[in-house]
Amino acid sequence: MARRMVILTEGHSDPHTAKTACSVMRYRPEEVVAVLDKESLGMTISEKLGVSIDVPFISELSEADGANTLLIGIAPPGGRIPEDWRPVIMDAIRRGLDVVSGLHDFFTEDETYVAAAEVAGVQLVDVRKNNESHIARRIGIRADCLRIHTVGHDCSVGKMVTSIEIAEGLKKRGVDAEFVATGQTGIMVAGTGCPVDRVIADFVSGATERLLLDHQNHDVLVFEGQGSLVHPSYSAVTLGILHGCIPHALVLCYEVGRETITGVEHVAIPSLTCIRDLYVAMSNIFQPCQFIGVAMNGRRISADEAEEEKKRMRDLLGLPICDVIRDGPDELVDAAVKFRDSKVWNTELLT
Amino acid sequence: MARRMVILTEGHSDPHTAKTACSVMRYRPEEVVAVLDKESLGMTISEKLGVSIDVPFISELSEADGANTLLIGIAPPGGRIPEDWRPVIMDAIRRGLDVVSGLHDFFTEDETYVAAAEVAGVQLVDVRKNNESHIARRIGIRADCLRIHTVGHDCSVGKMVTSIEIAEGLKKRGVDAEFVATGQTGIMVAGTGCPVDRVIADFVSGATERLLLDHQNHDVLVFEGQGSLVHPSYSAVTLGILHGCIPHALVLCYEVGRETITGVEHVAIPSLTCIRDLYVAMSNIFQPCQFIGVAMNGRRISADEAEEEKKRMRDLLGLPICDVIRDGPDELVDAAVKFRDSKVWNTELLT
Repeated sequence: MARRMVILTEGHSDPHTAKTACSVMRYRPEEVVAVLDKESLGMTISEKLGVSIDVPFISELSEADGANTLLIGIAPPGGRIPEDWRPVIMDAIRRGLDVVSGLHDFFTEDETYVAAAEVAGVQLVDVRKNNESHIARRIGIRADCLRIHTVGHDCSVGKMVTSIEIAEGLKKRGVDAEFVATGQTGIMVAGTGCPVDRVIADFVSGATERLLLDHQNHDVLVFEGQGSLVHPSYSAVTLGILHGCIPHALVLCYEVGRETITGVEHVAIPSLTCIRDLYVAMSNIFQPCQFIGVAMNGRRISADEAEEEKKRMRDLLGLPICDVIRDGPDELVDAAVKFRDSKVWNTELLT
Repeated sequence: MARRMVILTEGHSDPHTAKTACSVMRYRPEEVVAVLDKESLGMTISEKLGVSIDVPFISELSEADGANTLLIGIAPPGGRIPEDWRPVIMDAIRRGLDVVSGLHDFFTEDETYVAAAEVAGVQLVDVRKNNESHIARRIGIRADCLRIHTVGHDCSVGKMVTSIEIAEGLKKRGVDAEFVATGQTGIMVAGTGCPVDRVIADFVSGATERLLLDHQNHDVLVFEGQGSLVHPSYSAVTLGILHGCIPHALVLCYEVGRETITGVEHVAIPSLTCIRDLYVAMSNIFQPCQFIGVAMNGRRISADEAEEEKKRMRDLLGLPICDVIRDGPDELVDAAVKFRDSKVWNTELLT
């Protein structure tokens, strides 16, 4: 049965916290019925969340005609659910809706929800739940599968969207490309992937390597990055993915105007050149890897300011740059095709 | 009741694989009764494992007089238990011994062991089991608590032993120092700590930060490192600890003659200068951090070769160096005291 989702963002309808909601609406619009946030009643989704989709904000589940699923639409740092959401989640279960969540607090381990779901005959789906225990071995890697990896200067700057847009752009040009999801939202969009930040630390690179082994039948893989190498809380996840997907090419994702680290706001984000150099150092230990482009997230600036910013960054970093939401991904897709055709990347691994 | 342990190393009595056994015998000798490995019968512990302790190898648990605990004495990469150990473990449980394990495969989640332990009235202790969910925030860090961190070019090169020896050496000189264990063996020795490689990836730095917050009443902390920044399987753990303990000073641990990466043997370990530079880059993002010494593991070379090696490395790296097992830790303790007294490290965090 096809999912018909109400997305819950109650009190958190901003593009940063509600990034799960935004991405599911952007890439799975046909599955979305409404967004539940009474604080946003009367506004449009586009106004509040920046996604063009013809569904309303609602204040009660009773208004969501034909819905069969409640999707938890936020991704707070650390993955904890707001306590005051319990009543609406219980209401959804009692009304016979499945509940899909990407949070760290598992619904399937909450006795109240589990009991209610059993009575109502609905499913609780924890997208982050996993049992990964593969250890990265760097064996069996296909040498001519090009791997592109999006990395960032912070959390929530557009790595997933950039990855999807590059992969889709490549597909439109006839390239056998695939987006590889490493986070809960990406998995909801792609229908497959691994919630790497929820994997046991010893198996983070292994879980990523398993994704590589599972998907390398495609010619080009675009691996979604997580966090940032300079994030004091989550850099382990970032490096585990970087070393697990063994990229040939990186795309640097950043948000204009982001000054401090998400969740650690008393810490300033280092310069992009510093961050670029760290990624280059950590990705070139055993095989060559280079940046091929920059994905600028310009949601807080005007179109004119964005053009200025892109010019400045092109000069600073010497790389193609675009805002995949505002401009589309063409410039980065061009860069990926050019890099693929250059053949400089097709070297034997680890020689 | 005091532990009286038989250590199980059956078929794996070498210092590399049986590093848990070696370290517990080295630092908790009063708790060890015998080592169970029938393949090593007739040899001494010193010959096989390089630890001076007056206990025998035995072939049967019935020979272990007065033992009340079976300790799983190996730490294979990835933490899996050899399948053919089941009968001896079941025998131990039936004889009324508690079983202590640091492996990833939990005894407390194995139905057969759990049922047998219940009948026998014994405890199953999984040292790696944890429920860590603290997120690193870099708040509340004591500015004048000096943090030293041991890092390595590979797994199992002596980071834990070096950490313990430096902390103990500092204590002997009257410094209020503390070893902080981040792995199962260190926890068995210290009686406290966190098995960081078993923590969910999002919480790796947070778990380390929690150790810091819990122990920073001491003047000097020596944080045990794990894995290596260049290890394709485990670099995430390494970076998570590095960013979680926010060290002022690093000690570079390596084994002479180690050429390839443990568990990924087709991959050569990069040069020590390359590895040093990566640690410097990744530890200096937000505050200054420097190497203050080198811990050489010379177990595979002669005393003369070790002197040659130390001279060469002193010239190459310009740092104090010693083999803490062969020479004792004095040179590194000197370096730590000198660094502490220099006051160059006592800067406000994140300014």
